[in-house]
Order: sequence, then C-alpha cells, then structure tokens
Amino acid sequence: MTSPTRSCWEPSKVLVLGAGNFGSCLADHLGDSDHNVYLWSRQEEVVKSLNEVHRNPIYLKDHQFSMNITAVGPELPGKTLIDDMDVLLFAIPTQFLRENLTKLQSYLGRKKHPLLIFVNKGIEIGTHALTLEIIADTCGTEIAKAATFIILIRFAVVQRQPTSVSVTSFTDSEAQRAAVLFHQPHFRCYTGSDPIGTELAGALKNVYAIAAGAADGLGFENNTRAMIITRGLAEMTRIGTAYGADPLTFLGLAGVGDLFMTCSSPTSRNYSVGFRLGKGESLDSIIDSLGSIAEGVTTAKGVKMILDELGIKARIATTIYEVLYEGKDIQTAVRELLELPLSREIDLPSAAGGPAKQLMRKLGLC
Amino acid sequence: MTSPTRSCWEPSKVLVLGAGNFGSCLADHLGDSDHNVYLWSRQEEVVKSLNEVHRNPIYLKDHQFSMNITAVGPELPGKTLIDDMDVLLFAIPTQFLRENLTKLQSYLGRKKHPLLIFVNKGIEIGTHALTLEIIADTCGTEIAKAATFIILIRFAVVQRQPTSVSVTSFTDSEAQRAAVLFHQPHFRCYTGSDPIGTELAGALKNVYAIAAGAADGLGFENNTRAMIITRGLAEMTRIGTAYGADPLTFLGLAGVGDLFMTCSSPTSRNYSVGFRLGKGESLDSIIDSLGSIAEGVTTAKGVKMILDELGIKARIATTIYEVLYEGKDIQTAVRELLELPLSREIDLPSAAGGPAKQLMRKLGLC
Repeated sequence: MTSPTRSCWEPSKVLVLGAGNFGSCLADHLGDSDHNVYLWSRQEEVVKSLNEVHRNPIYLKDHQFSMNITAVGPELPGKTLIDDMDVLLFAIPTQFLRENLTKLQSYLGRKKHPLLIFVNKGIEIGTHALTLEIIADTCGTEIAKAATFIILIRFAVVQRQPTSVSVTSFTDSEAQRAAVLFHQPHFRCYTGSDPIGTELAGALKNVYAIAAGAADGLGFENNTRAMIITRGLAEMTRIGTAYGADPLTFLGLAGVGDLFMTCSSPTSRNYSVGFRLGKGESLDSIIDSLGSIAEGVTTAKGVKMILDELGIKARIATTIYEVLYEGKDIQTAVRELLELPLSREIDLPSAAGGPAKQLMRKLGLC
Repeated sequence: MTSPTRSCWEPSKVLVLGAGNFGSCLADHLGDSDHNVYLWSRQEEVVKSLNEVHRNPIYLKDHQFSMNITAVGPELPGKTLIDDMDVLLFAIPTQFLRENLTKLQSYLGRKKHPLLIFVNKGIEIGTHALTLEIIADTCGTEIAKAATFIILIRFAVVQRQPTSVSVTSFTDSEAQRAAVLFHQPHFRCYTGSDPIGTELAGALKNVYAIAAGAADGLGFENNTRAMIITRGLAEMTRIGTAYGADPLTFLGLAGVGDLFMTCSSPTSRNYSVGFRLGKGESLDSIIDSLGSIAEGVTTAKGVKMILDELGIKARIATTIYEVLYEGKDIQTAVRELLELPLSREIDLPSAAGGPAKQLMRKLGLC
C-alpha cells in the first residue's frame, strides 16, 4: 500500500477503541497502510484470537487481519499506552461513549493530546446529545473542538473496493491530519467543517432507512424508494437547517451518500426493521429476534423531541415515530403520507440554528 | 381516481405532443385522472392503434391506455386544436424541440396561451442551449418565463406505484397549475422555482450515469457506485453553482432523485453505455448496437465546453469526456481518478452565475 505523502511519511501509532465491525475494518485498513495499530476489545477471546491467528471471531470472521495490529484488552487501556499514541480512534457505540470517555479523559492533556477520531453515529438516549456534546461534557471544550469525525458509507473496506469517506472537524488542521492518515487510492478522504451537520445526518438517516425498508416490505418498487430517499433528504436538510447545520452538508457523503447506501442495503438493521414492519410484523417481535434495538428506532424518538422543540414539520420522520411508538397502522400511515397536500420541494426554515448555536457557544465557537 | 381539488375540479383539455415513453405515460396518467387528453404521434400506426385498441404499438406495448385519450397525427396539430387546449405538454426530445416549437409558435398568444409543460431533458447539440433558451428563441421571452418543467424520476407511472415529481417555473402560479393538474396520491408533485438548475441537473446526471455504469462494468461494487453518485452530485452542484443555479436544487428530485434512479437502473441507456465501456467494448460498437446516441454521450461534450468556459474542474465529467472522445483507456482513467489528491468535500465556486444571469437577462428577469 502506498501513502499519498510517502516522501515525508512516517507510520503513526494508532489505538482503535472497539473491535466491532467498524473498529475492525478501520484497524485493518490502517494496519494495511503500514501504521502501528493497537486494537482494544473488551472481550478476551477477541484479543486472543487477533493476536494468535489474526482473526476476529465475531466480526468479519473470514478475514485475515493485518499483521500490524496488536490487540489489547479486555481492560480499557491505561495512561502508559495512551501517552504513547499519535492517534485515538473511537469505534464505540454512541450509547457507551460517555462512560468510556469519562474513564479515559484524565489521560488526555487539554492542549496536547493524540489526534482524536470518532466514527460512531446516532443520538445519545436520554440526553439526545450529539457525540460532540458528549466529548465536551466529558473531556472539555478544547478537546471537543479538536475532535474529528469520520463518516463511512458502510464498509466494503476489507475487500479494497474503492470507497470514499468524509472527515470533518471544527479544526481544519485536525481534519486534514485524519484525512492524510486514512487516505489511499481505494479509500478516498474528503474534508469538511460542519461536524454538527455531519453527526445529525448520520443519526437522522437511520430513521429514513426504516421508512425505505417499510416501503419495500409493503411491496412498493424502486420509484417509491427513490421518492423516500429524495423526500427524506429534503426533510433531513430541513431538520438540519433548523438545528443550525449547513444545508450543503446534506449533499455530501454524510447526507446523500450514507442515506442512499443505508436505504438500499437489505442487510442494514434499520432497513430490516422497516421491511418487517411493512410485512406486518410487530415491533416487539422484531426487536426480540434482532436481539437489540436498531439505532433508527431510538433516534426516531430523539428526532420527535427535536421537531417538537424546533416547531418544524418532518412528516416521514413523524410517521415513523407514530408507527413505532403510537401503534399507528402502517397502511394508514402510508395512505396519509400520500394524501398530503401539494408543497414546495425544498422548504428550509428561515429562522434557525438554536441548538447548534447553543452547542457552539458551549464550545466557545460563537 | 380522485383529484386533490375535487370540489372545484374541472377536467382540462390537454394536448400531449410526442407519444414516446414519457409522453404516453403522462397522457395515460392525465387520462386516468379524468382529463380530456389528445396525444400527438408523428407515426400513423401509433395514432391508429391508440384510437382503435387503446394500445401503443411501440412503447408500453402491454398497457391498456386510458379511454380518455384521443390520438392525433401524424401531422403536427394546427391552430384550431391548439386554441381549444388548456394545456400543451411537450414530450419531444430536446434535439427536435426547436423545429417543432418554430412550427407551433405562431399559434401561441404571447399573453394568453395554454399552460405549457416541458418534460424533455438534455442540452441541445451545437448550441448547448437549455430548453428554456430554445423556448425563448422560438416563442419569445414571455412564453419562456411562463413555461413549466416537470422532472420525473423515471416512470413506473402506468403501474400506479407511488412516485414523486418536481414541477418548476420562473412563474410560481404556472408551476402551481401544472402541479395541480398532475397531482394524485400516487403521483406527488412538489414545486420549485429554479428551472435553470433543474434543467442543468437533468442533463448532467446522464454523464454520471455513464460513470456509474462503467464502475459496475469494471466489476466494482455498491460502495463504489455510492461514491460515484455522491461525488457526482458534488460535481453537479459545483457546475450548477458556477452556472448560476441554486445549489439546493441539486438536493431535490431533479438532482439526487434522478441521479440515484438513473445510476441504479441497468435499463437506462446511459448506464448501459458506461457498463459496456467498462466491459471493454468500444463506443462505436455500443452506438451501433444501441441504434442511436445515448443523451449522456452528447451531454459530456456540452459539459466539457461549459467547464472550459467557466474555468472550473469536474474530474468525473472530464474523465468521461476523455474516455468517450479522446480514446482514454478506462482502466487508466479509473486509476487517475482514484489517485487524485485529498480535497474538500463540497467546494462551491464563489464567483459564479454567468450563463444563468445571461439567460435571465435575456428573459428580462434581472
């Protein structure tokens, strides 16, 4: 593998926290790019298997992982390892991020600390906080301002299929560093500076994936899914703009790219919840058999609260909320959506930006 | 079928010009909504078959067309019929529009004329004119300002699958009239006011459909196609903004919706040109067996001229141009694209708008 800046290139020491699908993929990609990668798993068997046979017994079972990966765990890494790292990559689900950051924050200097990269998506249950806010709460505003966020549009990464990712931060130089770390011809990085919009898009799209799945489950065809994607994107952009994000962020990988992939992937958990709802199964039975709650199901509740707070309308998201939490019949829901009156296509709120401004004020950015 | 404004509803007299796929579909949809539809075909056998057995022997052969359709032709309709119409719907390919409008224009009053709806896409060969400009040249600026444009994201229309369309015009009241004419629960209309951006998006997307097809033909998978769609959209938006369109138009059906459908449809002519190029076939042999040139092939040339004129970069579109017209090897082209340096994700030109301003000045709009 070549590095785009091979002439002045030095391998980085990267600690990837979390050996799930995302964490394992990204650790492999970085190992393959000749970085020295440490991969933390909280499961002893995963640590053992990665170190002994370079395989993850739970995710990507058939893949032979890079020899440049050293697995660590099951205890959370301590100060010594973290002090030695150039990069910390958090591949921890949003709902567990606060507790892990609380434990790790004392090892991070407020001014000098490793490059921090986050790949989780979704809104924290209970607080409805974005990851940026969880970071600010646990590690302080300086660290939140320097944090970078990577949006992958799903992950055929271990097959080296050309793909592209979006890297965003309030601090351009940090986004640039993270992009250089990951960039390869088959893994193209694009930088941006709207982490709030990016995070929001990543969370919201899961709700629309449920809607796309439901349409397919109900027997509608490609045209209808294209309608849901397009109208969903218009809604996401309206919600994002009201929240204070840049509407153009929704034109990017975090918006269109991720939405398109998630809404077209029968293997996506959110799509599959929708598909089964469309086939007439109850949410309880779906959750039972999935073993855990798909992110979009939780996000739908958070979005409903955001919509009520901001006083804006997003009919598809509201409908998904009503189907999930108020027992609305899905056939009725579809009929009501289709019977809505004519409207303008892109209808952005004019007075907007409360929650983002509040968060940016908290970060000392405005 | 119900009309959204049934209480004050009156059927319209609509003349659909062109009995190709789009024209036939839309005539059927309007007939089914109880309008009185006249469908012009320049082929005698089509006129005869539609009137006698309500079938189109060339397009949608298996479909039984609405009884509310009267076929007319093969001569172009004259003043008497046109004077009697509430609506003229032009479903004539861009390359034949100028000659037909030149013949029809004398029947259209500059102040009082039927609602005019256009569904063609693409840039005129030779002049690189958008439809708006062809209308202004042939029928004058007043008629161009009142013209409405409908963007359908392909057409499962005759199967009554829920779908959505975008209706746009410089004159809001005319866009609203066209939307009311077409709107049904399964055929949702959304209005907009950026006909230049809408037209440009509709033309540009065909070039990216060639790119998406080529990636599939080369054996890349879904992630790569999502990358081409997302990066293609960013490029389209940059070109559109430089041209003077509203970047948000590209978030709508004419942008994302149409791009997504065209890039995901193996039956699309443009996708299929790309797919076969990816498989190693020569353009000449593809054009020979298609029988005519797919729109994106022509548009790629127009786009190249626009890019040179505006001095902006759009690497995917340029690459497609080079593959089509300069004999660049497609494998080399892909490698070069993947090896491009890091860049910002959404990078809109700051000084922009020349061509759109020129056109709007011509229409007396600025």
